[in-house]
Amino acid sequence: MGSIDRIKAVAGKVVAARKAGHDIVVVVSAMSGETDRLLKLAKGLTRTPDSRELDVLLATGEQVTIALLSIALQERNCPALSFTGAQVRIRTDNAYTKARILEIDADRVRKCLAEGKVVVVAGFQGIDEQGNITTLGRGGSDTTAVAMAAALKADECHIFTDVDGVYTADPRIVSKARRLDQITYEEMLELASLGSKILQIRSVEFARKYNVVLRVLSSFEEGPGTLIAGEDETMEQALISGIAHNKDEAKLTIVGVPDKPGIAYNILGPIADANIEVDMIVQNVGVDNMTDFTFTVHRNDYDKALTILKKTAANLGARNVTGDAGIVKISVVGVGMRSHAGIASRMFHTLAKEGINIMMISTSEIKISVVVDEKYLELGVRTLHEEFGLDSNASLN
Amino acid sequence: MGSIDRIKAVAGKVVAARKAGHDIVVVVSAMSGETDRLLKLAKGLTRTPDSRELDVLLATGEQVTIALLSIALQERNCPALSFTGAQVRIRTDNAYTKARILEIDADRVRKCLAEGKVVVVAGFQGIDEQGNITTLGRGGSDTTAVAMAAALKADECHIFTDVDGVYTADPRIVSKARRLDQITYEEMLELASLGSKILQIRSVEFARKYNVVLRVLSSFEEGPGTLIAGEDETMEQALISGIAHNKDEAKLTIVGVPDKPGIAYNILGPIADANIEVDMIVQNVGVDNMTDFTFTVHRNDYDKALTILKKTAANLGARNVTGDAGIVKISVVGVGMRSHAGIASRMFHTLAKEGINIMMISTSEIKISVVVDEKYLELGVRTLHEEFGLDSNASLN
Repeated sequence: MGSIDRIKAVAGKVVAARKAGHDIVVVVSAMSGETDRLLKLAKGLTRTPDSRELDVLLATGEQVTIALLSIALQERNCPALSFTGAQVRIRTDNAYTKARILEIDADRVRKCLAEGKVVVVAGFQGIDEQGNITTLGRGGSDTTAVAMAAALKADECHIFTDVDGVYTADPRIVSKARRLDQITYEEMLELASLGSKILQIRSVEFARKYNVVLRVLSSFEEGPGTLIAGEDETMEQALISGIAHNKDEAKLTIVGVPDKPGIAYNILGPIADANIEVDMIVQNVGVDNMTDFTFTVHRNDYDKALTILKKTAANLGARNVTGDAGIVKISVVGVGMRSHAGIASRMFHTLAKEGINIMMISTSEIKISVVVDEKYLELGVRTLHEEFGLDSNASLN
Repeated sequence: MGSIDRIKAVAGKVVAARKAGHDIVVVVSAMSGETDRLLKLAKGLTRTPDSRELDVLLATGEQVTIALLSIALQERNCPALSFTGAQVRIRTDNAYTKARILEIDADRVRKCLAEGKVVVVAGFQGIDEQGNITTLGRGGSDTTAVAMAAALKADECHIFTDVDGVYTADPRIVSKARRLDQITYEEMLELASLGSKILQIRSVEFARKYNVVLRVLSSFEEGPGTLIAGEDETMEQALISGIAHNKDEAKLTIVGVPDKPGIAYNILGPIADANIEVDMIVQNVGVDNMTDFTFTVHRNDYDKALTILKKTAANLGARNVTGDAGIVKISVVGVGMRSHAGIASRMFHTLAKEGINIMMISTSEIKISVVVDEKYLELGVRTLHEEFGLDSNASLN
C-alpha cells in the first residue's frame, strides 16, 4: 500500500471485481514508509524496544490502511467494513514481531460477506490467547491473505505486487523473459527463495498446505498475472519454468580438513551459533582421509563467517581457508525435470559452451543450482533461458 | 502528548511518581499533530468519511502513544504494559466519533498494578458491544482518565495540560491573576464553559458524578497544580474563585414581537433546527403586549443565525432585528456567592464606576455573567479581579 492515490487505485480494482460478481475480502498492509516511520519513533527512545510494545506500535500501520480503504470504497458506493486482526480474531502464538497464525474465526467475516459487504482486513497482525496484539513480521500481510482465503475456502487469493506476475527470469537481465501463466507452489518456492522476491516464502508454504490458489497481479496494471496452484495432472507441464539467480551470496571453503564423522557439524556449528544462515553446502569426496568443505552465506555475513571459519580451521588442523564474495548462483527450476532425465547435463553443457566455469553444484527434486563467477551472471542466465525454450518468441521446450 | 521528547518527559514524571510509592495508570492522548494528520488522509479520499472507519483510523493515534510511552518507561527500568481501549474493555455506546463510556472492566488493569507494573491506557477510545472501535470525540482522553480513576477508585486523577493550574482569570489579561489551590467541580464547570479551556467539560461532569478528585498540572513544570473536588464543609470558601470571559459570542435581538405563549419556541426553534447552539437568553418584560427577545450564539454562527432570525421576524410580524458580533461575556464565578448576598450589585456597581454599559445579564447559582462591548474586555476583567480581592498581592476577600 502506497499513498492515498494507491488506496484509490486499489478501491477501483475492488469495485471492478465486485461488479464481476465476486464476494471480496481485502487484506491490506501498511502504507509505504509507515512501518519505517513508526520504527524510527521507537528507536528514538531506545535501541532495544520491547517486542510486545513494538507490535502494538506497528499494528497501527495496517489499521490506518483498513480505515482509509473502507472509506475509499464507500466513497465509490461500495459497502465496506474494516476489521483489525483482533476484531477478525486472527489468533496467533505470542512470539511478538514474528508470530504464527494458529486459527482464524471467520464467522463475522462470512456474515458481512453475506450482507453484500466488502470486508477489509488488517494484514500482518493478530492477537494471542490473552488478547495481546502480535505481528507476523515483515511481509506478513501475504500470509494473512492466504490464511483468510483458507479459512473462507476462497476460490482464489490475489496478491497485488509491484510486478505483473512471475517471470521465466529477471526481465532486467533477460529482455525476452516471459510472464508465466501458471506455476506450481514448489516452483514458486524455489523461485522465491532464489531471488525472485515477489511473495513471502511463508505465504506460499501456507497456500500449499491449505491448497489456496494464488494469483500474483500488478497493483498498477491490468492483466491475468500468474496463477500459483498445485500440480494439475491434466495440464501439459513445461519442462523448465524459470531461470533464477541470486547475487547476494558469498562462498567459503575450508581446505584439507581431516575427514571424520561430525566434521560438518564442527565446521557449521560455530557459524550457526553466530546466527549466520547457510544456503548451499558441498563436501568433496575425501582423498587420503582429507576433505574440502564449501558453503555459501549471505554477502553481509561474509566477513564474520570468514573470521569464524579461520578459527575453526586452526582448531581442526585444516590446511587452508579460502573465500569468494564475487559469485552468483544461477538456478534452473521446473517440476518437469522430475520426469525428464538429462536436464543437469544439458545445463552444464550449455554453460561450458560459453566457457563458464562452475564452482559449486547443488540439486533438489525440481531445481539445479550452480555457483559461477559473478561476471557470468547475464551471460549464464540468458544462455540458459534460450536453451530451455523460455524466450518469448520460442515454441514450447 | 507532543514529540518524542514529550514522551520522555512524561516517562520521567511517571517514574518519579512511582518512586514516591504510588500505583500508576497513565492515560494518554495522540501525539501532537497526529489526529490532524490522520484526518487529512481521510479527507484526501472524501469530504464525508464514514464515522465508523474514522474511529478505526483515529484510534491508531493513541495506540502509537501507549506503545512509545511503555517503551520509554521500560527504558527507565520501569515495568510497563500498554492497553488499547479494546484491551482494557472500555465499553461505550456505538455513537461513533462521540461515543459515551458505559462501563470499564478494570480487572486486568488491577492485576497488572498488583504485579507492580505501570499500566498505560489509550485514551479517547473504546469498543461497543459488537467489538467495533469507537472514539469519544476530541478531548476524550480526559474523560477516559476520569473514568479509569472512578473504576479503580484512585486517590487522585492528574490531568497534565499546557498550564500549571486553574487561574482566577486569564493571566494574559490580568497580570495579577493567581493560581487557585483548590476549586469545586461546579466552579470548574462554570470556568471551563466560560472560556478557560483547560479541561473538557464532560470529564469534569464525569468526575463530579463519580466523586473523582482531579488535579490539573503542567506537563512541563513542577508544581502542585489545582485540585478540583467536591465542596469541603470544613474549608473556608473564597467568595469568588475567578473571573472568566468569552470572546467567541455574538448577540441577536428581535425587537417588538407580539408577546404570547410559545414565542420563545417560535424564535429559537428554527435556530436549533439549524444546529446552532444558543448560550444566554434574555426576554425583556413586555409592554403593550410586545416584547424584545435577545440571545447569544457562537460568532461563527452569527451570519447564519441572523438570516434565520430575519425570516422568523417577518413570519411573526416583529418590528426589527438587530445584532452585534462585537461583544464579550464576562462572568464572576464562585460557590461562595450562594451564601453572600449583594455580589451582583457589587459587580454592576464596579462596572458602572468605569463607565462600562451592560447589554445583557444572566445568572446562575454560582455565577453572574454580563455582556458588554468587547472594547471593555481587559478593563472589565481587571477591575472585577481587583474588586473581588483576587489580585495576587491581595488579602482574602
